Amino acid sequence: MSKKKPLILVTNDDGITAPGIRHLISIMKKIGEVIVVAPDRPQSGMGHAITINDNLYCDPVKLDSSESHEEFSCSGTPADCVKIGTQEILKRKPDLCVSGINHGSNSSINVIYSGTMSAAVEAGTQGIPAIGFSLLDYSLTANFEHTTKFIETITKNVIENGLPKGVVLNVNIPKLSAKEIKGIKVCRQAKANWQEIFDKRKNPQGRDYYWLSGEFINEDSGEDTDEWALEQGYVSVVPVQFDLTAHHVIKDLNDWKLND
Amino acid sequence: MSKKKPLILVTNDDGITAPGIRHLISIMKKIGEVIVVAPDRPQSGMGHAITINDNLYCDPVKLDSSESHEEFSCSGTPADCVKIGTQEILKRKPDLCVSGINHGSNSSINVIYSGTMSAAVEAGTQGIPAIGFSLLDYSLTANFEHTTKFIETITKNVIENGLPKGVVLNVNIPKLSAKEIKGIKVCRQAKANWQEIFDKRKNPQGRDYYWLSGEFINEDSGEDTDEWALEQGYVSVVPVQFDLTAHHVIKDLNDWKLND
Repeated sequence: MSKKKPLILVTNDDGITAPGIRHLISIMKKIGEVIVVAPDRPQSGMGHAITINDNLYCDPVKLDSSESHEEFSCSGTPADCVKIGTQEILKRKPDLCVSGINHGSNSSINVIYSGTMSAAVEAGTQGIPAIGFSLLDYSLTANFEHTTKFIETITKNVIENGLPKGVVLNVNIPKLSAKEIKGIKVCRQAKANWQEIFDKRKNPQGRDYYWLSGEFINEDSGEDTDEWALEQGYVSVVPVQFDLTAHHVIKDLNDWKLND
Repeated sequence: MSKKKPLILVTNDDGITAPGIRHLISIMKKIGEVIVVAPDRPQSGMGHAITINDNLYCDPVKLDSSESHEEFSCSGTPADCVKIGTQEILKRKPDLCVSGINHGSNSSINVIYSGTMSAAVEAGTQGIPAIGFSLLDYSLTANFEHTTKFIETITKNVIENGLPKGVVLNVNIPKLSAKEIKGIKVCRQAKANWQEIFDKRKNPQGRDYYWLSGEFINEDSGEDTDEWALEQGYVSVVPVQFDLTAHHVIKDLNDWKLND
């Protein structure tokens, strides 16, 4: 770790006022120089959405007069925040991008829906080491105190070791006290998915509408998965890549009759 | 291929009236029984966004009185369309889901921003064989005629061979005549990315705002990539997975000092 303080871009998907990002900012200020560029409102479930058919606002804000770091509130998605942060707001490429702490899990298949993780992935595509942090507690009044030491440890390891090109980290933290948490485990993404349930209703004009909800189904009993680690009381760390190629399938597809 | 006509769910991200999906529907009607559930307006760049903080409408529509298949227009994202299509609209699990034809490329890193591909991935998470089709022409008046035979060939191969669990296909088609296209190539996703450029302007009230644009940078000269194939005049087929775990990195991360 160099003696110069690392420059850290902080963002999230629950919006700049969410308790999760406020706690993450307080941790990062002990580790480096912090600049915040975060959505002006909740953007959960936004996946890797970007704003291409509308304009973006990105304004300086001061949420706490006792704080000296700079913060910007952006009208776009988490991925937009990283793009505008690195290209327009920051004077140099950041040494690290952290996203979160998300109010709710981003383990297993949730990574593909996650605005928190898409911000980290976006930074990764720009060659910036990046970590998404999530707490397994959806409450807006969730307690983040116990996350501090695990976030510090993982962040310091990333700054010290760097991350391989094309890889970012997906960190999920159980809703347990610091004492109850057994440690940090490197895992693979569990093969789980959502079984959707739509709640069908009628609006006052008589038109049908739906609320999406669902049930999380984990049929992956592997003890090397994030779901297993979290159930056992560990913090899970999954290395996530954005080369989505299923390399193992290419050979088989070449046997297909695609050019007859 | 069984004698029973396959049930095919068709969706896209440019909206249900886009010429690309109208052309895809006409192709699929020759292959199977078609049901369309597509966004009621353009949803480009939506990535894998889903609608969790708002309700969804999904209404039957009749865009062409000569057509006998059913179509539904949905207020949500492409991933929402697949979820509500499979859970609420279709009477049984479809044999195939196709998404597109997108007006514009979804090759290389664009796969992570693509609503077209997120619809295919969503179907994949439900165990439905799925393909996203894109044409390298962003114009709303793009000519899709030459795409027909390639889409037919790939679709029939998928119906005949199935797809491995956890894998969907990302197909991109050059903006060339059918004669000029050299064939179909199975590829890996090129390691390319976007160099953002923000166009900063002032609104009539004097407040700064931005338009996101960017330059596509491909530093991957591999002749096994989708970018290479498309440049050479081939249709590219990339097998895409939604297990994002960077399995090759797990061993190295286990050497970190995460539990000292």
